[in-house]
Amino acid sequence: MLEQVDLKKTISKEEFKKEIKPLRESLTELDGPIKQAGLPVIILFEGWGGAGKGRVISRLILNFDPRWFTVVNTQPPTALERREPVMWRHWITLPEAGQMSIMDRSWYQEVGTLRLEDKVDDLTNLRHMNEINSFERGLTDNGYLIIKFFLHITQKEEKARFDKLKSSKDTAWRVTPDDWCRLRQYDKYYNVFDEMLEYTDTPWAPWHAVSGMNDEVRTLDVFRIVNDTVHAALRLREEKKAAGPQAASGIVQPGQYHFLAMPKLEDIDLSNKSLDEEDYKKKLKKEQERLSELHNRIYRKKVPVVIVYEGWDAAGKGGNIKRVSEALDPRGYQVIPVAVPSREEKNRHYLWRFWRNLPLDGHIAIFDRSWYGRVMVERIEGFCTAEDWQRAYQEINEFERQLCDWGAIVIKFWLQIDKDEQLRRFQDRKNTPSKQWKITDEDWRNREKWPQYETAVNDMFQYTSTDFAPWHIIEANDKKYARVKTLKIINQLIEKRLREGKHHR
Amino acid sequence: MLEQVDLKKTISKEEFKKEIKPLRESLTELDGPIKQAGLPVIILFEGWGGAGKGRVISRLILNFDPRWFTVVNTQPPTALERREPVMWRHWITLPEAGQMSIMDRSWYQEVGTLRLEDKVDDLTNLRHMNEINSFERGLTDNGYLIIKFFLHITQKEEKARFDKLKSSKDTAWRVTPDDWCRLRQYDKYYNVFDEMLEYTDTPWAPWHAVSGMNDEVRTLDVFRIVNDTVHAALRLREEKKAAGPQAASGIVQPGQYHFLAMPKLEDIDLSNKSLDEEDYKKKLKKEQERLSELHNRIYRKKVPVVIVYEGWDAAGKGGNIKRVSEALDPRGYQVIPVAVPSREEKNRHYLWRFWRNLPLDGHIAIFDRSWYGRVMVERIEGFCTAEDWQRAYQEINEFERQLCDWGAIVIKFWLQIDKDEQLRRFQDRKNTPSKQWKITDEDWRNREKWPQYETAVNDMFQYTSTDFAPWHIIEANDKKYARVKTLKIINQLIEKRLREGKHHR
Repeated sequence: MLEQVDLKKTISKEEFKKEIKPLRESLTELDGPIKQAGLPVIILFEGWGGAGKGRVISRLILNFDPRWFTVVNTQPPTALERREPVMWRHWITLPEAGQMSIMDRSWYQEVGTLRLEDKVDDLTNLRHMNEINSFERGLTDNGYLIIKFFLHITQKEEKARFDKLKSSKDTAWRVTPDDWCRLRQYDKYYNVFDEMLEYTDTPWAPWHAVSGMNDEVRTLDVFRIVNDTVHAALRLREEKKAAGPQAASGIVQPGQYHFLAMPKLEDIDLSNKSLDEEDYKKKLKKEQERLSELHNRIYRKKVPVVIVYEGWDAAGKGGNIKRVSEALDPRGYQVIPVAVPSREEKNRHYLWRFWRNLPLDGHIAIFDRSWYGRVMVERIEGFCTAEDWQRAYQEINEFERQLCDWGAIVIKFWLQIDKDEQLRRFQDRKNTPSKQWKITDEDWRNREKWPQYETAVNDMFQYTSTDFAPWHIIEANDKKYARVKTLKIINQLIEKRLREGKHHR
Repeated sequence: MLEQVDLKKTISKEEFKKEIKPLRESLTELDGPIKQAGLPVIILFEGWGGAGKGRVISRLILNFDPRWFTVVNTQPPTALERREPVMWRHWITLPEAGQMSIMDRSWYQEVGTLRLEDKVDDLTNLRHMNEINSFERGLTDNGYLIIKFFLHITQKEEKARFDKLKSSKDTAWRVTPDDWCRLRQYDKYYNVFDEMLEYTDTPWAPWHAVSGMNDEVRTLDVFRIVNDTVHAALRLREEKKAAGPQAASGIVQPGQYHFLAMPKLEDIDLSNKSLDEEDYKKKLKKEQERLSELHNRIYRKKVPVVIVYEGWDAAGKGGNIKRVSEALDPRGYQVIPVAVPSREEKNRHYLWRFWRNLPLDGHIAIFDRSWYGRVMVERIEGFCTAEDWQRAYQEINEFERQLCDWGAIVIKFWLQIDKDEQLRRFQDRKNTPSKQWKITDEDWRNREKWPQYETAVNDMFQYTSTDFAPWHIIEANDKKYARVKTLKIINQLIEKRLREGKHHR
């Protein structure tokens, strides 16, 4: 891709002045419509050191209201960030609807300079590039606009610019030893950049490789592309809005994974799945002690564990989670209750709030309800479109795949009770003063939608029980049985991992 | 304080069993009421290494629903955290209403172990202790409950415990070289801890020094104190609620500071404060170039700058901020628009969201509206009680004092226009299609409250124009004049600081 950039292009001062003026005016009027349309925009700049990223960003933002954009300056990952999945630090800086994020370097650092400097092997690098492509597809599918620039200059020009910066006391500090080192290995980096550009030049987020040799050319190209792309995106939104809601394709493509066969919810046998008090106490103690020891071991081996609890209202998630967490060192786990999203969360990609709450490696995160809300409550209540939830299976599988690639053990529980048992528990809550706060009108309303939830859960089982993150069904009419079963599964899966010793990063 | 702890106390197994049972039951029933009352609870544990902090926390949390508490494990500050004010890292982990935060070490690290290990001088340490006292008073005044434990053991016992941990492969890693070093200097640490406990033992957040010599005694004491304190706090809330709204004392105590004389808003002369286009362009360019250079210098000197914009609706804050930010390197500043708080923000101390958005040292944060909302819109609209806003002047002065002590330049602007000018601008917005989105019904409603705002602003001037963070009045009927004036003030204040070279940390 880089060989196609015209590095000789120039423009006369007069021509530049004539062309830049209407562009400036047009850009200045953009932030109101962006805000009103609730469009989240990411404009990212990659390129050679000295190619003018900082300079063109400074010029670009002069056109915008400073309250509505953020400049993200991406540095190499910190020690803490290296304890999270590769894309973690990029997820958490996502702009919200109506905001612009202007990035001075970005996630391409991972497959660009860091590829060489962290000595990432080819296979891992390919995985990172795939993660980036699916990250960007997920963002654009969920309403984000991504505009990507690569500023290109020759090795000779780069050297000239570094020399110039070095010659003044005020600017010398801006050229780092790393910069000189990269300059010397220009050809090596060229190949890395070029492959990265080719592989991540997608229909949903194409690259714009721009010459950085000439200040006017660079400014004009960047302004023009930003202006055209944002206008086109706003127009598309308008047209979609005018066309009204469209029938969803109805096609679910959960991605290319190996899916496990799962029973239908209505076929799960809940009978004879119980424990008497004495048996329970003994088994609970045994499994908790085992987990306690395993927690210590995963902490030392830096294995992250992500546990998901889903299930009917009153299925006993809270009590079950309590029995797990009792066995854990409080400094090494976190329970994340998932309720209605906050405004901050609603205004971003629906997976944002889960990325934000991922554990450090060696820690355990227990999600009490999870990202599966997208294909359950959001589907049923119409909080997202049919396209949205049909696409979500793949997005979720990709997310969990990244967790596994990072080295996490992903454990997903469905706590199954039958409708009669739920009624008994609701009535018990209603009639016990100390439990009344636990039952709301919404619980009763959800109960009326039992059949819709059954369909949604069956779809979820079908499309998201991958071999790397399968669903575990917990028969929970008897709470004691359920608690011992989840503990056993957690212990088995951790032991298996410790035996195999697989850990990607 | 430490000499009063009875380190010889023991209890028989039978006695322990008898006493612990009702306590456990009572604690188990606490989290529902805490949730319902929306009480934010902080339980913090300090004490000697090996005194059993981890152990007692593990036992305590067995009583609670794991979805409603977080265990905060406080480590020494990271390089990034050291670039923020001392209390920054503690502010951002505050629990929200109805949640419990259980802290394994806390802000007392700053005036405990770090006092010796970071070689903090006595005066700075005293300042830190004062900051902690006002931090805790601010929290309790704003509805938080803080329960503080110090677990005490003898040097001999500490050594015995370290030796025991060291003797097993599974536990040896838990005793760090720092632990051994502290053990050897037990007496030195004893004095530091004792002074810290005496000085920060306040009516609003008293210390509970508990013996850590005996597991049962420790558990029982901690359980009993938590149980009693939370119950008392819940009862107090109930009583307050039952008593109904009380008349506020009406007494404003803005704290012991030197306040500057300020004009009344109605006496500000707005005439002859304008610039013609040519003069404006020249002066603007000059001041922007100056700021641009100064930004580079504060970046290298690591001086943080906090700029606050307040003023009437349509006073021209947005355009003014734009002229400032145009001069800045986009990687070194952030504009923070302050609007209605999100749920996350509403459920915490009102200053939380501003702490979260403080700049790194060497960076500039520009707040478009600010914490002064507490004594303006919240006061006028009744979003807080009279006690709340009357207390807020002192809380705000303490906050800004901490920013200055950290080394920040705090610059506060009030953009003043008269009522006729506002009307002209509102009508202009209404009649210009591209500006219509900028004017809402709320703007018109606020305009009707002009006299109430005038009173509130005059109070704000009187009580918060301290010598370290004074208000600057910007006559803004002419936007050009206003822009040049703010730029000039910013430049002058930065230059003054660079000349004086004062920087606390």
